[in-house]
Amino acid sequence: MAAKVGVIMGSTSDWDTMKHTVATLEELQVPYEKKVVSAHRTPDYMFEYAETARERGLQVIIAGAGGAAHLPGMVAAKTTLPVIGVPVQSKALSGMDSLLSIVQMPAGVPVATVAIGKAGAINAALLASQQLSVHDEALRQRLEDRRKRTEKEVLENGDLT
Amino acid sequence: MAAKVGVIMGSTSDWDTMKHTVATLEELQVPYEKKVVSAHRTPDYMFEYAETARERGLQVIIAGAGGAAHLPGMVAAKTTLPVIGVPVQSKALSGMDSLLSIVQMPAGVPVATVAIGKAGAINAALLASQQLSVHDEALRQRLEDRRKRTEKEVLENGDLT
Amino acid sequence: MAAKVGVIMGSTSDWDTMKHTVATLEELQVPYEKKVVSAHRTPDYMFEYAETARERGLQVIIAGAGGAAHLPGMVAAKTTLPVIGVPVQSKALSGMDSLLSIVQMPAGVPVATVAIGKAGAINAALLASQQLSVHDEALRQRLEDRRKRTEKEVLENGDLT
Amino acid sequence: MAAKVGVIMGSTSDWDTMKHTVATLEELQVPYEKKVVSAHRTPDYMFEYAETARERGLQVIIAGAGGAAHLPGMVAAKTTLPVIGVPVQSKALSGMDSLLSIVQMPAGVPVATVAIGKAGAINAALLASQQLSVHDEALRQRLEDRRKRTEKEVLENGDLT
Amino acid sequence: MAAKVGVIMGSTSDWDTMKHTVATLEELQVPYEKKVVSAHRTPDYMFEYAETARERGLQVIIAGAGGAAHLPGMVAAKTTLPVIGVPVQSKALSGMDSLLSIVQMPAGVPVATVAIGKAGAINAALLASQQLSVHDEALRQRLEDRRKRTEKEVLENGDLT
Amino acid sequence: MAAKVGVIMGSTSDWDTMKHTVATLEELQVPYEKKVVSAHRTPDYMFEYAETARERGLQVIIAGAGGAAHLPGMVAAKTTLPVIGVPVQSKALSGMDSLLSIVQMPAGVPVATVAIGKAGAINAALLASQQLSVHDEALRQRLEDRRKRTEKEVLENGDLT
Amino acid sequence: MAAKVGVIMGSTSDWDTMKHTVATLEELQVPYEKKVVSAHRTPDYMFEYAETARERGLQVIIAGAGGAAHLPGMVAAKTTLPVIGVPVQSKALSGMDSLLSIVQMPAGVPVATVAIGKAGAINAALLASQQLSVHDEALRQRLEDRRKRTEKEVLENGDLT
Amino acid sequence: MAAKVGVIMGSTSDWDTMKHTVATLEELQVPYEKKVVSAHRTPDYMFEYAETARERGLQVIIAGAGGAAHLPGMVAAKTTLPVIGVPVQSKALSGMDSLLSIVQMPAGVPVATVAIGKAGAINAALLASQQLSVHDEALRQRLEDRRKRTEKEVLENGDLT
Repeated sequence: MAAKVGVIMGSTSDWDTMKHTVATLEELQVPYEKKVVSAHRTPDYMFEYAETARERGLQVIIAGAGGAAHLPGMVAAKTTLPVIGVPVQSKALSGMDSLLSIVQMPAGVPVATVAIGKAGAINAALLASQQLSVHDEALRQRLEDRRKRTEKEVLENGDLT
Repeated sequence: MAAKVGVIMGSTSDWDTMKHTVATLEELQVPYEKKVVSAHRTPDYMFEYAETARERGLQVIIAGAGGAAHLPGMVAAKTTLPVIGVPVQSKALSGMDSLLSIVQMPAGVPVATVAIGKAGAINAALLASQQLSVHDEALRQRLEDRRKRTEKEVLENGDLT
Repeated sequence: MAAKVGVIMGSTSDWDTMKHTVATLEELQVPYEKKVVSAHRTPDYMFEYAETARERGLQVIIAGAGGAAHLPGMVAAKTTLPVIGVPVQSKALSGMDSLLSIVQMPAGVPVATVAIGKAGAINAALLASQQLSVHDEALRQRLEDRRKRTEKEVLENGDLT
Repeated sequence: MAAKVGVIMGSTSDWDTMKHTVATLEELQVPYEKKVVSAHRTPDYMFEYAETARERGLQVIIAGAGGAAHLPGMVAAKTTLPVIGVPVQSKALSGMDSLLSIVQMPAGVPVATVAIGKAGAINAALLASQQLSVHDEALRQRLEDRRKRTEKEVLENGDLT
Repeated sequence: MAAKVGVIMGSTSDWDTMKHTVATLEELQVPYEKKVVSAHRTPDYMFEYAETARERGLQVIIAGAGGAAHLPGMVAAKTTLPVIGVPVQSKALSGMDSLLSIVQMPAGVPVATVAIGKAGAINAALLASQQLSVHDEALRQRLEDRRKRTEKEVLENGDLT
Repeated sequence: MAAKVGVIMGSTSDWDTMKHTVATLEELQVPYEKKVVSAHRTPDYMFEYAETARERGLQVIIAGAGGAAHLPGMVAAKTTLPVIGVPVQSKALSGMDSLLSIVQMPAGVPVATVAIGKAGAINAALLASQQLSVHDEALRQRLEDRRKRTEKEVLENGDLT
Repeated sequence: MAAKVGVIMGSTSDWDTMKHTVATLEELQVPYEKKVVSAHRTPDYMFEYAETARERGLQVIIAGAGGAAHLPGMVAAKTTLPVIGVPVQSKALSGMDSLLSIVQMPAGVPVATVAIGKAGAINAALLASQQLSVHDEALRQRLEDRRKRTEKEVLENGDLT
Repeated sequence: MAAKVGVIMGSTSDWDTMKHTVATLEELQVPYEKKVVSAHRTPDYMFEYAETARERGLQVIIAGAGGAAHLPGMVAAKTTLPVIGVPVQSKALSGMDSLLSIVQMPAGVPVATVAIGKAGAINAALLASQQLSVHDEALRQRLEDRRKRTEKEVLENGDLT
């Protein structure tokens, strides 16, 4: 099935975080593609990727990056598809640099930023799916089932005994 | 025309920021509704608003809040529609508290966070519109025209003379 | 004996911190109940818990949470009992996100915030006990004995020899 | 009527913040006393104030301070009454220093910390009142009426028209 | 005379800062060109600017930007000329976001980062000139004269009388 | 020989840091005493310690503490001897809380603050010794010998071969 | 009378802060000298100033600087007199850069750091005076009188009426 | 071959970071020298090193330091050669202190600052080489080959399979 979500990351070292995005998309049966696309090492390919994303059928792009994380914002500058940015936890500054580089975009070019690290990677997949669910009743059902399941888990195991 | 975007904010004092969201939606001819919905002062109404959002035809919710900004995350907990959070600039901590309270959501319930303040408020409207544009060719065109217009403005006035 | 203190936390992973709250309450012989109540995964149960807290005889609620820690503030929005918030140390930002999400509440709905992590968890129990001690002479005595004991320990072992 | 809440602050310059505590206590008809008590300039008086607080009938102390804000924590070290700390917004660091100096207390001596500045000052009064309301039905009613009033205000003025 | 230094900035609003770069280059008689080049609004032009910089005779590029400041790093990704980044002071976060977005570049693509705001803008011009001075004896002399002049000013006016 | 430097710390857990103060004083043959003195657990003893310090012959006090580190400032409030504060590295916030709690003292009561952790602990001893050296020629000589020794070590081993 | 305290600052613009140091020294009748000494603009003079400080009779040096504030630490590297550093409030980062540049000295070369801005400038003078008071009974008396005066002021005006 | 790049660091403990600078210079066949030069322990040698750098044929200096990192800025004050500063990751504050001490230089004396830690150490070497490449065609070629190689690596291994 043709990919609806493009999952990209700035480096193979980001895979440790971004694999959670992919796992969540698979759990929700959302078709995706995944690639390493580096803003700084493959700038031309990044632009080509972003420019052709819509015509290739993508409906949303998820981009993970750390440090001076320019990938989400630069992809967003080259497409009018929604772009979700995942701040990867960096070594010295624990992802605060990644977060600010991704979220503080100037007016005109938005990036939908999620939490630093693994939680953000999972939530990027959920956010993309929630967007798709507006026109996909079955996906909406899967998302709501997921919510009910996690709610039930908390209620059943909440006594800490 | 029925609202597709719900714009909510925690307090009337957030309007000074969130009016930029509304102005941008109007510029792009995206039908919206706007309301003050307070997580802490009207918690029940907040839940009702979020729970009925999808059935009332909303396709995305934009929530602006400052300080311990719980509105976007709590609305997100009660709907599977995409929720965009706008961190309003707070007095003492300049919106760093708003940003962290909105973006650092746990795995399971995402909030699409944008920049602190006015730029974020404009970008929230653009992000919502970009999502809608996947199924709205005319809106996609308006978004791309807007991009071209801003590009042209920079190119024509870039000599600083 | 009926619980006077409700100890709740956003996730079973917070137990590692919040067990110190429970241990301190037990040491002081303060009756309590404990539960996992998640703002984002069990929002309805959270509201029900908060709404019925006073009539069930609770006199104070202690809520631990990490990251975008909405639990203490949302519980506080649904009850006029005092709510004590414990910022659990988060992975990327070391609990600074938890702290700001809990402490920076808007005027109208207070949360009594304590230190990040274990020290805060212990102190939440002490703070709740100090509140109860205003109308419980025996508990007041236990609190003062505890103070004297720690003072004595420092004085006796303060020579570092 | 004998004061139940002691409102103290480190300097007359804190009054601009702490007057909101006093105004809220008056609105709720909670008897209080107010004083400047400086940890660094009147250390002996501070200890005397804290040591005699309970026997003088106080049931909770609210202490506001800025910068290296030692007043709430030192008062807390000399009484087993609950102590609420209000971080006053400081000039250079916007109250982040005040907040950390107040909230990061070691295990054994808690301070119930509220938000930086005016919102915190109001909430300190509410938190004290919520504590007192456990044994004061009329005060509980006034607190719940206040909540309902603010809820109604939001609901009635929420259309931003 | 052909420009040796390219001075670019992300927006006309950055001119208020970057005019100090230009003034310092003029003072030192270093030939330059200046342009608004926006990473997010004119991404293609940015790439073209960077790609052709060396062949057009530029020997160093100075790029000023604020917030999620991607301009210096993306220009650096498209040229092997040295790129100097000036973090423009942003509204909410005072340029801390600009600084981290510029300085925290991944291994492989460096940006020479200077101080936030006016001091950084002046120093960017000096840094570029110091680089050029290695092969320009007259410029080296002007730089050393400038140093001696500022030293003399301090020594002569240092008595604060 | 009578102690000239009082080395105190808030908890036995601070000894791991403060032992470097003691070791440096011993190296420099400066007579000292050491004690655990807790601002929060032994407030009365702290005041007594500070009040009697000068008459007991101390000429400077070094106080190490972490988190909401009130010990140095409160000791400083009770003596006109110089007080040096060592911010002990805290668990969650890495000593940033300790640093701000110690250094941001209000006008009137100074604390001489040094670096967080081990470097600060060593430097506290050196700073105290430098003060004493103004009236102790032999100590001045030992300090200058120490400087020369470290200089020589760098010069001799600086080739990294 | 020969100066015992050397008051230096990195720039004439620091005078607005450092004048409070001078005023406090005058109030306490402590002989001082004052100078602009810039680490970056007059490095040789800075070294000469520091190297000759002790032989010229100075017993302590107070150095104020902002931003990358190298003056206190570099002076400390060239003398074994005690050096007190005053972090001047900087424009973009409110003195947090000044504070960290001054306080985080490596083991071997201490700087006694005080609070950011005016409070720190006053306290630097008090700290220097407290050091001198160990061998100057009249100064000790003036310092204690000053303490008693400020205590009395608080006690007399503490009713906020 | 005579060194064109001087690589210095404040301590042998910085070698773990700065060895990446040296390795990158060797990879690019850029002649260099390396030394430990401490701002605080060998201030006179630091000045001599900086003062004679240009006449000894150096064309750029790379200086790594951590904490209150004064080495890059003080070297920059004593030469008009370009100085590149590498913030070494510090223990307590993860290099944020190093970064601010290096980058926030006052107008007049620039330091070209790169990222904290290993990435910055590599990039310092690349930045120096990029500067030299303006007058060294073979080096320019090696830099561009390096860029192409890393681009190719990403493109060939980007499928994460």
